[in-house]
Amino acid sequence: MKTLNIVSSRPYSVHIGTKLLRDCGSFLKELGKRGKVMLVCGTNVDPLYAKTVSDSLSAAGFRVERFVFSAGETAKNPQTLLSLLNAMAEAGLTRADCVLALGGGVCGDLTGLAASLYQRGISFINIPTTLLSMVDSCIGGKTAVDLPAGKNLMGTFYPPALVLIDTDTLSTLPECEIQNGCAEVIKYAFLRKPELLELLASRSWDALISECLCVKARYIAQDEFDSGERQFLNFGHTFGHAIEAASAFSVSHGEAVAIGMVIATRYAAKIGLCKPDCLDALKNALVRAGLPTESAYDRSTLLPYLLADKKRRLDSLTLVLPKRLGECVLKPISASSLAEVEV
Amino acid sequence: MKTLNIVSSRPYSVHIGTKLLRDCGSFLKELGKRGKVMLVCGTNVDPLYAKTVSDSLSAAGFRVERFVFSAGETAKNPQTLLSLLNAMAEAGLTRADCVLALGGGVCGDLTGLAASLYQRGISFINIPTTLLSMVDSCIGGKTAVDLPAGKNLMGTFYPPALVLIDTDTLSTLPECEIQNGCAEVIKYAFLRKPELLELLASRSWDALISECLCVKARYIAQDEFDSGERQFLNFGHTFGHAIEAASAFSVSHGEAVAIGMVIATRYAAKIGLCKPDCLDALKNALVRAGLPTESAYDRSTLLPYLLADKKRRLDSLTLVLPKRLGECVLKPISASSLAEVEV
Repeated sequence: MKTLNIVSSRPYSVHIGTKLLRDCGSFLKELGKRGKVMLVCGTNVDPLYAKTVSDSLSAAGFRVERFVFSAGETAKNPQTLLSLLNAMAEAGLTRADCVLALGGGVCGDLTGLAASLYQRGISFINIPTTLLSMVDSCIGGKTAVDLPAGKNLMGTFYPPALVLIDTDTLSTLPECEIQNGCAEVIKYAFLRKPELLELLASRSWDALISECLCVKARYIAQDEFDSGERQFLNFGHTFGHAIEAASAFSVSHGEAVAIGMVIATRYAAKIGLCKPDCLDALKNALVRAGLPTESAYDRSTLLPYLLADKKRRLDSLTLVLPKRLGECVLKPISASSLAEVEV
Repeated sequence: MKTLNIVSSRPYSVHIGTKLLRDCGSFLKELGKRGKVMLVCGTNVDPLYAKTVSDSLSAAGFRVERFVFSAGETAKNPQTLLSLLNAMAEAGLTRADCVLALGGGVCGDLTGLAASLYQRGISFINIPTTLLSMVDSCIGGKTAVDLPAGKNLMGTFYPPALVLIDTDTLSTLPECEIQNGCAEVIKYAFLRKPELLELLASRSWDALISECLCVKARYIAQDEFDSGERQFLNFGHTFGHAIEAASAFSVSHGEAVAIGMVIATRYAAKIGLCKPDCLDALKNALVRAGLPTESAYDRSTLLPYLLADKKRRLDSLTLVLPKRLGECVLKPISASSLAEVEV
């Protein structure tokens, strides 16, 4: 087992290894927790792993309450959030108790938000079960649900108390979900760590996940509340989020970020920031991971979604553009200059 | 005009004076804000002061959006919160814009929560217009809405960017609302500042408000997230919240806290912590302020609400008990020992 210690306003640990689910009760006890645990998972993960986690918690002396939601991005809405908050209140959870997310990014984002809001904050334990959430959303403390007007518009910054990554759970993950995570791995390779491309080819999960989280942890430590350095993590996401929204979320996050990284890198090459072979290297990595490289949407379709980007400030968007594999820069661009970007 | 600087994870200023509403646009500009302002107020305050504030903001170059909710504690629910968040999204607010609460505690709690959640946090300006919110809830960063299971169960800690207290607005406040605020003033007198009782008798609002906020600010600076020292601010509130809930909120917050302080002080006298004249001094101050001193509810009615207190940890509640006028102590009490407390 490998442990990372994340620097934040409330520091926390991430344990990465195998067979961690069945030991999760002991980990929570070591953390000094006792009392009740509200175990939250989607209908996809519930039949696979909820019993293992619940049994481990019960054996360690916790009283386990359960909340199961209908899996999928559409569950990430204020109504599911309120149902969860009401379930926590009905179960009589106090500030000394905790809530545990067992699932992918939707489950973690939703549960983390509920933990941050219930009685103004109770302990949040995250057990991510998808590659995407393991390499990305499980650290950093961003929680959210979607509003009708856009994705992740309602949320908080709320660090978890503990993250447990059991890579055994990747064995039941559909291949399309593995690809979904690969896009973020390739993002980290271009931001700072080229050697991630080899770890990806060999599917060395433990090393791959810990290297990705190390890159992300460095940005978070510098900029917990996303007003400066952390913007680098947005590589591929400005256009990616617009593509996801334009497709009404039929394009997955990984596919959208893949295409978004291509759009940003093509623009970087056009303005002479990187060489054309940087774009080739990106496209090769994406194709090898089974990810798309071209958008099905034109500029006029994407523009309204770009302008609705929640990271926009007044009339300017900040793009993350590569100089080479392993180094990116931030470049503010006015809304009117978006016309120069080929999508 | 008097200015207090509040120490918190994000420090902010409180300006106390007269004619501040008509200058609010300039204050926001001085803060470095520009762009859009979502002005939030209840149907009671809207016809009285919204135009003055809106005109001042427009004159300072802000684009003003409006959200008016049906006034009263029942508006402090997740549905109003979602309506406000959706209105902010539809108005296209970005992280550089801000949201302004013009009203009492319900308006401030609701608007502060929306500000903390929208795009994971945008600037929140608070202009309290009731004595209760001026002396208490406008600082400290506690935001909330009620859930069916209880009051303030869904909320965040989120400091405002600026607080403007215009004491001119007290001239339109109904007498029962003045009384509502007096209970908290008497609380501060017993916690730390006996001289507040004289300021209360002379209704010297500016001095009274600034002295109350100074007492509160000291507790907040020591314990922003309410896990230690800040519990002192809870004097009268453990029983007070139970009385409010048992009455289905027909008893006002001030009346309930008044009775709650009497219950706590009677218990303190019973166990020999304070002398009987401390209880007399409290009752006299409450009666002079037009506040009640006796509960209409018995212990068995209040008990379930006491056990649902969100500050309860596992099986223990912490009571705030006076030693004398101007000094209180914290005393943990087990749920089973509540039977010793005469209500």
